[in-house]
Amino acid sequence: MSVGIVTEQSITFDNGIKLDSGRILAPITLVFETYGSLNATASNAIMVEHAWTGDAHLAGKRNEEDTKPGWWDAIVGPGRLLDTDRYFVICSNVIGSCYGSTGPASINPKTGKRYNLTFPVVTVRDMVRAQKLLIDALGISRLLCVMGGSMGGMQALEWATQYPDSIASAIVLACTPRPSPQAIALNAVARWAIFNDPTWRKGEYKHNPKDGLALARGIGHITFLSDESMNAKFGRRFSAKDGLFDFFGQFEVERYLNYNGYNFVERFDANSFLYLAKSLDLYDVAWGYESTTEAFSRVTAPLQFFSFSSDWLYPPYQTEEMVTCLKELGKPVEYHLIKSAYGHDAFLLEHETFAPMVRDLLYRAG
Amino acid sequence: MSVGIVTEQSITFDNGIKLDSGRILAPITLVFETYGSLNATASNAIMVEHAWTGDAHLAGKRNEEDTKPGWWDAIVGPGRLLDTDRYFVICSNVIGSCYGSTGPASINPKTGKRYNLTFPVVTVRDMVRAQKLLIDALGISRLLCVMGGSMGGMQALEWATQYPDSIASAIVLACTPRPSPQAIALNAVARWAIFNDPTWRKGEYKHNPKDGLALARGIGHITFLSDESMNAKFGRRFSAKDGLFDFFGQFEVERYLNYNGYNFVERFDANSFLYLAKSLDLYDVAWGYESTTEAFSRVTAPLQFFSFSSDWLYPPYQTEEMVTCLKELGKPVEYHLIKSAYGHDAFLLEHETFAPMVRDLLYRAG
Repeated sequence: MSVGIVTEQSITFDNGIKLDSGRILAPITLVFETYGSLNATASNAIMVEHAWTGDAHLAGKRNEEDTKPGWWDAIVGPGRLLDTDRYFVICSNVIGSCYGSTGPASINPKTGKRYNLTFPVVTVRDMVRAQKLLIDALGISRLLCVMGGSMGGMQALEWATQYPDSIASAIVLACTPRPSPQAIALNAVARWAIFNDPTWRKGEYKHNPKDGLALARGIGHITFLSDESMNAKFGRRFSAKDGLFDFFGQFEVERYLNYNGYNFVERFDANSFLYLAKSLDLYDVAWGYESTTEAFSRVTAPLQFFSFSSDWLYPPYQTEEMVTCLKELGKPVEYHLIKSAYGHDAFLLEHETFAPMVRDLLYRAG
Repeated sequence: MSVGIVTEQSITFDNGIKLDSGRILAPITLVFETYGSLNATASNAIMVEHAWTGDAHLAGKRNEEDTKPGWWDAIVGPGRLLDTDRYFVICSNVIGSCYGSTGPASINPKTGKRYNLTFPVVTVRDMVRAQKLLIDALGISRLLCVMGGSMGGMQALEWATQYPDSIASAIVLACTPRPSPQAIALNAVARWAIFNDPTWRKGEYKHNPKDGLALARGIGHITFLSDESMNAKFGRRFSAKDGLFDFFGQFEVERYLNYNGYNFVERFDANSFLYLAKSLDLYDVAWGYESTTEAFSRVTAPLQFFSFSSDWLYPPYQTEEMVTCLKELGKPVEYHLIKSAYGHDAFLLEHETFAPMVRDLLYRAG
């Protein structure tokens, strides 16, 4: 069942946080949504972390007319995988984003103007620092579980290593201990596409730089899909409207990237896109430690990892490196390689496949 | 040994050719180079086909001061794999390119102006049609071998299927019977990068649109390398000049893409890049036939295929489809999967690995 109509909440921390870069970001506002009820012992809270361009609207609808539910509605609600009759589910928009939490499009109270490129570079660890303030404010000393895919998985890893006492379990999907140079390169060309757009004006735009941002998103889509899923979805079909020998004629896959690229311009801020791409590229679970082993030696909660066979952005071998390391440390770790054609996006789509394992982990953690 | 100093030649066919699109392209000029001597029976000629952004300058130097030899110098010369003491080696710049052969930057004799976007879309088959005129003019009725990687491999496939009587053997490296939608998508975003550049002006530029073309080439470089080779070459090293938390700070891999992208602008025409990207995407060995099987039923010469384990642009399974089809038809076919970390670029770098097999094929064909 759906959680029904939900209302976004927001909280502001005037003192903000000290970032990994050494800079202070203050104040910080976090936008979040919650579903279900926190129990008397505050022991049934699950934090779901969103990916790069996600938001706090995880489940339900904004109003009766809303036709599109939250981004992972399929797994949240009464009787669903994250059963809101049992669990109190929280999703908060990360700092650096553009969906209400403090980011480059926010007004800097010191200047009265948008931060734009004066916004500090934030890390995934910084995002979780801000979320820690949120759960403290909600009166939760320990999350039953923290769960996320891609950048959401990185946040779960940060909870597990930075706040081991604050979680009872973590679920990490389609993730990596640190993006490979190939993944960085793909983000780099996406950034470059925005930098090339003359309307970007080094971040001082009035309107989103549409051609550059659409192209950047188009590049992203290639990395979210797979050779296999593109074959199934588009094959080599040529647009029916175009002649095969038209210079501007398009393959269906090309139209898809264009269409989705330009749609994205309506919903996401270019500077936020750039800042979060940076957070992704800089991500390293061993940041500040001698090694991954040293970072993972801090883990106490059981970790459950999922990777997806056709994910070439954060391929399974990268998750397997983490699993091996945790096993060597004798940590409670579980790993599932899911056979899927959906590429990196699989983590959002294969929930029926991973539901039994997740349910089992939640049962054991609870 | 090097072939020494070489001089570019050129030939013009006033009547041109009828293209796959139905349009006539006339006149056609082809720029080419030759190394070694044609024997009395004209039976020792090897045609080497270049890839997307290659040229006719396969081997040797332009002059005494020239510091950079031709693009595949390592395999051409006295005593080298394509031994110019025995073979007459030809390399011709494809139509659509910008290195002397007729392409979008050529002057249209009807208007006295550059073709730019009035240039017709050309296919790989059209490129080979033009080359057939060249070998006829050189008095060669049958090539001992035609050899090429990537788009060069597609040309070799076209010789094998369209002019089966004109070749005694063919070598196809790092190729595909037809690019997958993922490969098309990666070319599509490269095209998009040029379209987005306001200085491109729908092809009517005075100066190459540098930011767009550099980015397009940067995207290309990602597809020519591999996760593995990028790891070995750059890892996650951050530029020593930049601060990790600088908004414009770059990873080494990012600098590499930038540097090579902007270098490319000095040497390649943006419209040619677009036309040849189109030729690549449209390529289908079965074009005009019911099936790949029908196309391959025309083959008579022995075919030798090489694919490279880390090539994710034209992955081994795509070559293997062709090999299986040819075997089922009972055609003389040989296949070698080379283990290499160099990605798609491996075909240019792994010549020591494939030399024995190539030498053997040439020996048998001769």
